[in-house]
Amino acid sequence: ETTDKTTPQDMTCKEFIDLNPKAMTPVAFWVVNKDNVYQQGDYVDWNEVETIFVPQVIKACKQKPESKLEELKQWFNEVK
Amino acid sequence: ETTDKTTPQDMTCKEFIDLNPKAMTPVAFWVVNKDNVYQQGDYVDWNEVETIFVPQVIKACKQKPESKLEELKQWFNEVK
Repeated sequence: ETTDKTTPQDMTCKEFIDLNPKAMTPVAFWVVNKDNVYQQGDYVDWNEVETIFVPQVIKACKQKPESKLEELKQWFNEVK
Repeated sequence: ETTDKTTPQDMTCKEFIDLNPKAMTPVAFWVVNKDNVYQQGDYVDWNEVETIFVPQVIKACKQKPESKLEELKQWFNEVK
């Protein structure tokens, strides 16, 4: 069994860019929605994450590869 | 901008096992929930995906690395 963390709390931008692209939308969905989905509040749907957020995360991460995805989360909330 | 697919429709088990472990729960969440979250039906929450489904996916994928994650999805629905 894998004992390492299987959620991206401390994933860095560099790790995100190095991901298998097929995992990018699910990881971005986690970053944006992991707190919202519970309250059935204004969670961001898969399509919006795939088409809007993933390209933005890639662009932001290329500029600051050492930053943490979680830091981008505040930035997303302003954009949303 | 990445033009390759950023969602795991055709991700194979081998690709899942080779993922950065931090992406496993989000990818498993996508496999299990991508159709459910819309209908606010019985979607599986993050914690259940992380603690129950990810270990099962890893075990199943080690037995059948060439199978597609989507094929496992039917199997999950029976387990759920």
